[in-house]
Amino acid sequence: MRFTIDKNQFLKGLTIAGKAVPAKSTNPALICYRLEITPKGLEIIASNSDIAIWTLIPTVLGDKEIVRNTSLGSVCITAYTLAEFVRRTEGDELTLEVIDGAMARINAGKCSVTLKCMNSDEYPDLSFEKSATPFVLPCSDLIQLVDQTAFAASTKDTRPVLTAINLKAESGKLTATATDSARLSRKSVDIDPALHFNSNIPAKTLSDVTHLLDPGSNVEISSTNEKITFSFGNTIVSSRLISESYPVSSSIIPSTFNYRLEVNSQQLLSAIDRVSILSQNMAPVVKLSMSDESVFVSSATTSGNGEESLSTVQFEGDRLEIAFNAVFVSEAVKALGCEDVAISFIGEMKPFIIKNPKDDSIVELITPMRTR
Amino acid sequence: MRFTIDKNQFLKGLTIAGKAVPAKSTNPALICYRLEITPKGLEIIASNSDIAIWTLIPTVLGDKEIVRNTSLGSVCITAYTLAEFVRRTEGDELTLEVIDGAMARINAGKCSVTLKCMNSDEYPDLSFEKSATPFVLPCSDLIQLVDQTAFAASTKDTRPVLTAINLKAESGKLTATATDSARLSRKSVDIDPALHFNSNIPAKTLSDVTHLLDPGSNVEISSTNEKITFSFGNTIVSSRLISESYPVSSSIIPSTFNYRLEVNSQQLLSAIDRVSILSQNMAPVVKLSMSDESVFVSSATTSGNGEESLSTVQFEGDRLEIAFNAVFVSEAVKALGCEDVAISFIGEMKPFIIKNPKDDSIVELITPMRTR
Repeated sequence: MRFTIDKNQFLKGLTIAGKAVPAKSTNPALICYRLEITPKGLEIIASNSDIAIWTLIPTVLGDKEIVRNTSLGSVCITAYTLAEFVRRTEGDELTLEVIDGAMARINAGKCSVTLKCMNSDEYPDLSFEKSATPFVLPCSDLIQLVDQTAFAASTKDTRPVLTAINLKAESGKLTATATDSARLSRKSVDIDPALHFNSNIPAKTLSDVTHLLDPGSNVEISSTNEKITFSFGNTIVSSRLISESYPVSSSIIPSTFNYRLEVNSQQLLSAIDRVSILSQNMAPVVKLSMSDESVFVSSATTSGNGEESLSTVQFEGDRLEIAFNAVFVSEAVKALGCEDVAISFIGEMKPFIIKNPKDDSIVELITPMRTR
Repeated sequence: MRFTIDKNQFLKGLTIAGKAVPAKSTNPALICYRLEITPKGLEIIASNSDIAIWTLIPTVLGDKEIVRNTSLGSVCITAYTLAEFVRRTEGDELTLEVIDGAMARINAGKCSVTLKCMNSDEYPDLSFEKSATPFVLPCSDLIQLVDQTAFAASTKDTRPVLTAINLKAESGKLTATATDSARLSRKSVDIDPALHFNSNIPAKTLSDVTHLLDPGSNVEISSTNEKITFSFGNTIVSSRLISESYPVSSSIIPSTFNYRLEVNSQQLLSAIDRVSILSQNMAPVVKLSMSDESVFVSSATTSGNGEESLSTVQFEGDRLEIAFNAVFVSEAVKALGCEDVAISFIGEMKPFIIKNPKDDSIVELITPMRTR
């Protein structure tokens, strides 16, 4: 196996596949890239227990020859060393040649390294086959679905299904839902009404995928019972699914409320940020106190207390005090990304929702905290 | 005690003194700032076991009133909470008032916090007195002395004196020396020939001090047997000294050599960077092989080997191979900060020196490694 390759394209491919290389593994093949020269170009594969990535660096891109001087074959090379070496080389191209199946010699200008390598037979056999019924989505839609919900997924392994984003196509809507059971985030985009689909995809996988997407193009999504693949450009990402049924029904979001507060997002975020300084832990509790006369956020801890009144508000309802995890509300308001937010309450100990008053496609649900 | 203060000047003062606040301490007063309103303005003190900082925010700066509405007194307030709160406030000023000696109320626009505070009697009694014979140095000189040597000081506590920079004034030169016993870095600047001075100052302290200096102004240095103070602007930094005698004589640097290599700094750094990729640990060993015909760096590890020839060089001497810790040579070359470096060798297992061929004021000494 041998090839001479454009340095920048090689590094781009290694970086894409590198998202799947585990930091460590009991299987030495998994900390490698599997490289294969085929008539199409250089195929790079990397994988961990959650995700596998296949990417092709094509022989020709536009009218530029990217991979040349090839001899077919495949090999596994330690990912960290290869990617770091390529990153540090100077010059426009480099040549990699496998010698006796055991060593890979890389020449880049005046620098030459010889790396131990493994036979590609040692690499797990991965399939990147698509199902019979893939569907296509603008990348920008998938990015929104993930960016606006993934933060609400659980990071604890105690209930694996809560580490997933539930992606469901129904009645012309593709809806992403994530919850850690204390808060929930849900975002929808329009989709072909004929499409039906329901999968739980690890939130971390989806975040990794969206970072690889080009917002101006499309992604093809295809799923079986066990896994889901995302195809875009010359890359396919395959992720395991969590087969357990998702524990949240679409009716979990209340629709009638007794109180409604509309407030400038930035002012709310800054006030929460300031008063929550007093609790030096990961879950600062902040209280929102609302009445006809005033609306203010406050916090009381053993090291002191603080309060700040909010000005640009509109409040409908009786007097209400409600306490919450400041991080949950801040993350929800940031995910909405709008100038003003509307917060609707049922009562002191009932979950409340935060929305963009001008956009019904996204909703954040938060369970209050008991302070007495 | 009460004051209304310009927010940016307050934050600047808190940030300067903050360099001395320990991350944790068994003495709760030490994680506080000691604040005192005097007729001059607001004095802020913070300290840890190595260093103490006193800084004054003057009542008036230029023609602008910075501290006003004052009532004299002093108090201790948790440093992290106070600095973070001030940082997050909006508006140009804020007011702090101590209530019943136990709470500090801070008003900043619509936000008000009340922080638990301690009586200033709880704070250790620190002296920022100067000795009778201080001397003055351009800040830019002290910055150079420290930046070009501190990296070579030891970070291990096994020989405390090696964690210091030795600062010695003699025969019109002020010389900084740092060594971890495997390498040494030494830099001199010109000084009044009448000055005699010899102190071991913890390298970390000196780095902290130089970050606070304004390169365009002067610093006044004053030392006793036990401590040294640096005065600049409205700030005084006091550091403990390490009283042990410094174990390095000025004659440690050899002066006659058998080999001399001159090489482009960036080319040497890049080549070392590339071939040392193969050793995934903190002390990559790299070998320099020199002869009339060629000069190259190489590395050989269990995961592979690499070599790179260097072009823009001049070499005088017989054939020589010498191995070294790649990090030591890279840090030394970077500290020199010059286009080409001159490396002078005595022989394979003898310490070698790296210099700027155009500047004798700085020298780097490195002990080679045995590879067989």
